Amino acid sequence: MARVVVDVMLKPEILDPQGQAVANALPRLGVSEVSSVRIGKRIELEFDGEPDLDRAREIADKLLANPVIESFTLRVEDPS
Amino acid sequence: MARVVVDVMLKPEILDPQGQAVANALPRLGVSEVSSVRIGKRIELEFDGEPDLDRAREIADKLLANPVIESFTLRVEDPS
Repeated sequence: MARVVVDVMLKPEILDPQGQAVANALPRLGVSEVSSVRIGKRIELEFDGEPDLDRAREIADKLLANPVIESFTLRVEDPS
Repeated sequence: MARVVVDVMLKPEILDPQGQAVANALPRLGVSEVSSVRIGKRIELEFDGEPDLDRAREIADKLLANPVIESFTLRVEDPS
């Protein structure tokens, strides 16, 4: 078993209202040192055999990310 | 500027219908080697100065994760 992790984030030029809402709540918790919050998705794909990054990239491109507003990165991770 | 990344995933015993929907769609794409898909959140906290992991843990615990159904991990990441 091998795990490929796909991180999908909104592109920097796209507004992130969910992250903004969290950022706006931080001063009420007494937190002033956080300047920005961005919220995206983390997807774990468990492969039966060897992890196939090209296959994972195809899955991310077709099913997991919207290339108009999102970008993604891939990496193999040891399951823990 | 320093970035702390918080990964929030559903606990293993909690059903993940969003991930299941993706997993069910994979055979239609001709993908048979992925046995499981889990979808969670990735949150990027940008700190003004030094990253403060204890502070980030407090934010994750209070605002980002629901400890009843989710677990989270924290790490410092170089902004890129």
